[in-house]
Amino acid sequence: MQEAGSRGADERAPLKVALLGCGTVGSQVYRLLTEQSADLRARAGAPLEIAGVAVQAPDRPRHVPVDPQLLTTDGMALVTRPDVDIVIELIGGIEPARSLLLAALSAGKSVVTANKALVAADRAVLHKTARQAGADLYYEAAVAGAIPLLRALRESLAGDEVRRVLGIVNGTTNFILDRMDASGADFSAALAEAQALGYAEADPTADVAGFDAASKAAILASIAFHTEVTADDVYREGILSVTAADIASARAMGCVVKLLAICERSNGGISARVHPAMIPRTHPLAAVREAYNAVFVEAESAGRLMFYGAGAGGQPTASAVLGDTVAIARNLLAGLRGPDSSTYAQLPLVPIGEARTSYYVQLDVVDRPGVLAPVADAFAQQGVSIKAVRQEGRGEDANLIIMTHSAREAALAKTVAVLGAMEAVRNVDSVMRVEALEDE
Amino acid sequence: MQEAGSRGADERAPLKVALLGCGTVGSQVYRLLTEQSADLRARAGAPLEIAGVAVQAPDRPRHVPVDPQLLTTDGMALVTRPDVDIVIELIGGIEPARSLLLAALSAGKSVVTANKALVAADRAVLHKTARQAGADLYYEAAVAGAIPLLRALRESLAGDEVRRVLGIVNGTTNFILDRMDASGADFSAALAEAQALGYAEADPTADVAGFDAASKAAILASIAFHTEVTADDVYREGILSVTAADIASARAMGCVVKLLAICERSNGGISARVHPAMIPRTHPLAAVREAYNAVFVEAESAGRLMFYGAGAGGQPTASAVLGDTVAIARNLLAGLRGPDSSTYAQLPLVPIGEARTSYYVQLDVVDRPGVLAPVADAFAQQGVSIKAVRQEGRGEDANLIIMTHSAREAALAKTVAVLGAMEAVRNVDSVMRVEALEDE
Repeated sequence: MQEAGSRGADERAPLKVALLGCGTVGSQVYRLLTEQSADLRARAGAPLEIAGVAVQAPDRPRHVPVDPQLLTTDGMALVTRPDVDIVIELIGGIEPARSLLLAALSAGKSVVTANKALVAADRAVLHKTARQAGADLYYEAAVAGAIPLLRALRESLAGDEVRRVLGIVNGTTNFILDRMDASGADFSAALAEAQALGYAEADPTADVAGFDAASKAAILASIAFHTEVTADDVYREGILSVTAADIASARAMGCVVKLLAICERSNGGISARVHPAMIPRTHPLAAVREAYNAVFVEAESAGRLMFYGAGAGGQPTASAVLGDTVAIARNLLAGLRGPDSSTYAQLPLVPIGEARTSYYVQLDVVDRPGVLAPVADAFAQQGVSIKAVRQEGRGEDANLIIMTHSAREAALAKTVAVLGAMEAVRNVDSVMRVEALEDE
Repeated sequence: MQEAGSRGADERAPLKVALLGCGTVGSQVYRLLTEQSADLRARAGAPLEIAGVAVQAPDRPRHVPVDPQLLTTDGMALVTRPDVDIVIELIGGIEPARSLLLAALSAGKSVVTANKALVAADRAVLHKTARQAGADLYYEAAVAGAIPLLRALRESLAGDEVRRVLGIVNGTTNFILDRMDASGADFSAALAEAQALGYAEADPTADVAGFDAASKAAILASIAFHTEVTADDVYREGILSVTAADIASARAMGCVVKLLAICERSNGGISARVHPAMIPRTHPLAAVREAYNAVFVEAESAGRLMFYGAGAGGQPTASAVLGDTVAIARNLLAGLRGPDSSTYAQLPLVPIGEARTSYYVQLDVVDRPGVLAPVADAFAQQGVSIKAVRQEGRGEDANLIIMTHSAREAALAKTVAVLGAMEAVRNVDSVMRVEALEDE
């Protein structure tokens, strides 16, 4: 049995790694760089040595013991140090991460980042700066944590045509919706449970309002469709308005409610959107429980693919960060760059009103014969085709449940407005998109 | 909107591709290279031009129209032609594929192959020849078709420690076992159905005896554990002896029977094996139906990952082949090579007798009080710990069903031999491994 690194990696000068941030993910990256140094050296082709760790408060207790000599509060000085080869950014948020990474890339340092907000906002300028300086830019951990998804979309499917990406890319909201489905809890009770278990932050806005998923949708759409898409381009609805009744209705129809990031070819362009949707319980994504992530990809030749795993957490994210770091190290030793961003297609973004999907509509109606005819007519007037109708209850609790065929979002919205103004409709109780139906 | 290829790819000289074989997969690769040439050119950085297509019988009808000028029966002349840059091998089997690829690599041509048998047998010499000539060697399509698995193991998890790979990597046997589970059919009826639907060959030996899965297990183990493993190193049992009764027993225990390729760290070495096993119905692999493939990976940091998709078929396999082709094209244009094989660890292979798993044992026993004591003692004598026992039936049909804790294969085999010789045991009806239990 050979020693790790026996292929000559020992003789190569170490590659120096600067770490920005040493929180949940950063401390795991630090630990793995230290504990697994022999294996990493063998795989990268040279030792990976930590040059420094930039933190806000050097005296704060860490998850893992960090050599105090390596700590600094001056991130800018660290990332531009002449001996640094690779910068790993795990601070998150736009600033100061943006300035630090642009400075690092401009100075020719290759960058690994897990920062979805920054990549979703400034992917184009980051890639351009990297290209001009001959540096690498990798961000596998920015979408779906440890799941090796971006590399698959960018490289494995490079000879294929992606039609659609449907992703559960936010663990917090999947946990909340899964609890609501499993226990019948309402949103606020499920959120409180998620917070108690550490799956949701004290301020859960970024997750439950869909901002986090929208950033990831932008990155997925950019790579899948060779088009620059930013988070602002992504239509976004969170899960705040999902009720226990919606979940129960979905269940009655053999469906489950998930917050989906959807990127698909549509009408010569692409639709990128994040919203809660019903999906059939038989769909592989329906089985994704708790805080797990999964991304379902439909490609012209490859067919249906699914990638499943932990979407967050210190260790899984650190795994993805180290995979990127090893890739960059190999590139540096071979004197080359990894794949650049590919945005040759620049497909137009289709506005949400032009997106097409099926809908579930629940109406509180007056209980008298002949209600269905004017309701059905309201759909027909907008060209929305009804797939199934069910009437539930009697008297005060009369409900009409309507499932449509695939229809334009704008047409459905107009229909709902008309229904809301009808004398026979007391209330539009619920409208929810239905995705991933086999026959649509 | 920019034209595909507007980034200057038009001005690069075309890369010439030689195609070996033009059957189910080859014809789809030919079609995509032709139909998607603009997109491929933009992604690869230069046009990909078909230099020639080597076939056995040029006059045979093809799935897609092939320019007759490109057809040749002289594969060796084609792969060594000075103008050829990339060779795509889709013949399958050891010879003549082996000679053709060694000649191509020696001549400095980069190679894409979907040939699992060849890679599983001769991975080391193929990689060595590629390295010496400065050529690339990619074979994503050799395992699990379009599922981008090898790239994920090799690159995305390069900074992680893979503990275990559990894969459903043969669509034919998964289809057969799924039919047996769904309909209660026995093996031969399910095989006949698979043959009628085109999921199984007229001679199904390579699939049902586990040879195909063993080749894939060898490739997976090699990459996951940085160790050279050939198909001959893989312990192999097929599904020929799986009975309708086994499937029913699995069902009664909340399990399903799958043919698994298992590669795991074991006792300082690695265990690589292919055999039918029960897995809990709650495991993500249990939901893999029909001819789909899926591979479940457990890594130290990344945790549990699963990759799911079509494992065979012309189009999915062609997608993986083209992904590799684009990767090679990008490397060639950048003047570099893709990742080499990594075999620095060279972990020893653990013999099957030393492998550890749980077992299901079903015994036909005489119906009298006190049978359990000597049976339990037979297990205890070999150090095999019993997890659960159930007695079924009465009189002539008395059965003992025993589930063990994790135990050494050799100890279990000895136990079964002892049980078989016991007066109180009329027959050992079934012995099956049980994998992926949560608590083992």
